[in-house]
Amino acid sequence: MTAARPRNVLYFQSGGVTAVINATAGGVIDAARSLAQAGAPIGTVLAARNGLSGVLKEELIDTASLSDEAVLRLRQLPGGAFGASRRLLPPYDECPDQWERVAAVLRAHDIGHVLVNGGNGSMETARLFVELGQRYGLDITAVGLPKTVDNDLLDTDVSPGFGSAAKYLATSMREASLDLAAMSGGARATKVFILEVMGRHAGWMALSTALAQDGPDAAPHLILCPEVPFDEERVVAAVSATIARVGYCAITVAEGLAGPDGKPLAVERDAATYGHEQLGGVGPWLADRVQTRLGVKCHCAVADYLQRSARHLASRVDLEQAWAVGATGVEWSLAGRSGVMVAIRRLADAPYRWDLVPAALDGLADRERKVPPDFLSADGLHASPLARAYLAPLIAGEAYPPYGDDGLPDYRWQCPSNLAPRLSPYSL
Amino acid sequence: MTAARPRNVLYFQSGGVTAVINATAGGVIDAARSLAQAGAPIGTVLAARNGLSGVLKEELIDTASLSDEAVLRLRQLPGGAFGASRRLLPPYDECPDQWERVAAVLRAHDIGHVLVNGGNGSMETARLFVELGQRYGLDITAVGLPKTVDNDLLDTDVSPGFGSAAKYLATSMREASLDLAAMSGGARATKVFILEVMGRHAGWMALSTALAQDGPDAAPHLILCPEVPFDEERVVAAVSATIARVGYCAITVAEGLAGPDGKPLAVERDAATYGHEQLGGVGPWLADRVQTRLGVKCHCAVADYLQRSARHLASRVDLEQAWAVGATGVEWSLAGRSGVMVAIRRLADAPYRWDLVPAALDGLADRERKVPPDFLSADGLHASPLARAYLAPLIAGEAYPPYGDDGLPDYRWQCPSNLAPRLSPYSL
Repeated sequence: MTAARPRNVLYFQSGGVTAVINATAGGVIDAARSLAQAGAPIGTVLAARNGLSGVLKEELIDTASLSDEAVLRLRQLPGGAFGASRRLLPPYDECPDQWERVAAVLRAHDIGHVLVNGGNGSMETARLFVELGQRYGLDITAVGLPKTVDNDLLDTDVSPGFGSAAKYLATSMREASLDLAAMSGGARATKVFILEVMGRHAGWMALSTALAQDGPDAAPHLILCPEVPFDEERVVAAVSATIARVGYCAITVAEGLAGPDGKPLAVERDAATYGHEQLGGVGPWLADRVQTRLGVKCHCAVADYLQRSARHLASRVDLEQAWAVGATGVEWSLAGRSGVMVAIRRLADAPYRWDLVPAALDGLADRERKVPPDFLSADGLHASPLARAYLAPLIAGEAYPPYGDDGLPDYRWQCPSNLAPRLSPYSL
Repeated sequence: MTAARPRNVLYFQSGGVTAVINATAGGVIDAARSLAQAGAPIGTVLAARNGLSGVLKEELIDTASLSDEAVLRLRQLPGGAFGASRRLLPPYDECPDQWERVAAVLRAHDIGHVLVNGGNGSMETARLFVELGQRYGLDITAVGLPKTVDNDLLDTDVSPGFGSAAKYLATSMREASLDLAAMSGGARATKVFILEVMGRHAGWMALSTALAQDGPDAAPHLILCPEVPFDEERVVAAVSATIARVGYCAITVAEGLAGPDGKPLAVERDAATYGHEQLGGVGPWLADRVQTRLGVKCHCAVADYLQRSARHLASRVDLEQAWAVGATGVEWSLAGRSGVMVAIRRLADAPYRWDLVPAALDGLADRERKVPPDFLSADGLHASPLARAYLAPLIAGEAYPPYGDDGLPDYRWQCPSNLAPRLSPYSL
């Protein structure tokens, strides 16, 4: 039996990053090393700088230069260690020269395995790599590694990154609501707190703050998801009733909250104000509406990047899944599995049990996982018990990063330099 | 020798709350119990519900009903356990009936010690309690316990609450900047991240994010304090230069940033947009200016209540100081010290050493501690080495709260009911 020739692995981070996407990178590199040491035909992991942009520009980082300790440190590093990009591979007909270039880069670096770490659009890019391999006669496998704080990927129980964002947001809501409760009873009282979270089309992150509730009248009192058209009269009435009953009202609003016409409210408002589209802003907009309608003082926080980079408050379950997805992607790729995403399958809610199963990459791009109606309360303004049962295990367990003498999380990590290019430059 | 008659302690939380103000309450209650057990003439600690409002309304909570464990749990509870209020005691001439009422409440509950836990205005209220005692012939001492995330109290090295807010903000800036770095290199790149922090008149919290820097070009790249009038041309030029040099630019902006005319920018803008004053909003405003001027994509987070309630990321030094200030306030009050604030004195920067000393309450209300010019870099857009030396020890050490099975900090705490009133009702 002739030993198969070791082939290299191409890994890249695609789309917005998360608090644990680097754990997936760590899982990929660690598994590839272990397999190589065990004699498997696998070479080095080349990470593209800035996602697909780095593939096209042949900006590749040989992770072989990373010490084992540096690989392990990827577990505790938020952001995207190698840089990410929103660039996706277009279909061949739209841009044949990009396909040509990618094929050349794969050949030049003897890539046998392509691992794309991203969300919906990135899974389609992973799928196109399968096509690309066939078109150019390259012997490659392509595997998708799920990642998105939005949790809008289908065919997986959850996407790594979401659990940590959820843990951060639920904690923030619980903490801020204690502040609100303290400030709501005295003079010049604040009566409403609004937390604006990410989620353009899906309310998963907004919904996750329901986990902050530890009693019937605990915060959040209202959760406004993009799946439920905003009805100002109903929301104002609900806020007013909550203030009357509880003394204050805490609200989570998803950035993509839309009116009955389907248009996002924040964009509408900002287009009117500034003459151009500006994302974000639904939180302050809602605060202004509530303040104007009810005459109560409102506070508003906008979590923005904080919610997807808060590694200091990562979910241990999420971190473990992120690592496992990377490691398993390498194993499957080496076993010749291609055109699949490493999906998380839920075996039980409590205690949470899960394993990893392949999901076809086909068509993931066009199907967005929205919050289903039975995950919402009857009035559409909160989470149902079904949603809580789904969400609860995803934020379980702590996984603190080490702290330095400076009193801050120690995120030192040195990204190696790019490999010397083997091809002529390519401009994007 | 006749044993002195035990007198009760009145404690209240005044102004905005912090992540560690309840630790001060815990220190007060714990010290009073220990002293009483040792035979000192001290009774129970009565906490007013919702600050001074609760004193006037005779809404008092007898903390004797709290178990020792419940007192210790105050160390780990954000928000204000007994409720806070922005209500301050007016001078006698402005409102003699309020003085009359307070005196009646103090008499009815045999109060011998008044401990006011708050900021500048609250220290003046503490001082007025001394006057009130004299005017009504009450044998009371009044002691101020410093508390403010703004850190604008004079005569103390730092105010409890600030260090934890600073730790949270510096961590958030470090984490978000890793996200920004990852997103700045690819397609549809984000080039600027703005973190809006609290601080109407003083830039302490904004400045504290300088601690996130762990290298010469590390975030934050610009810090905009209320002490430095906003000069759009200079700031836009600095942002542009930073993007050219680093690839991206992270900015901290204090909510109270003002233009050359001294008017807060956020208020100006909101007054124009909405026809009424709306606080907050300088972050999104700045994002819009940068985006318009430089044509780069900006992200903006607004920390709001999150920065002062993030007990999950408290500074251990801050927590210890908060507790010590409460405990020492009781000891001093029992020793007959009155009209003083329990101030923190710095003995050394590194390693940080401190003790507690009395500071006169007189005139604290009118003097706000701003960021001094030598704490700013030469261009006024960053922290100086002097500022770093001052700030660094204040965020040292971790003090995680316990986490429950739900994956969230366990902040359960049951506030006892109000004592039955002994006086007729009083309406505010």
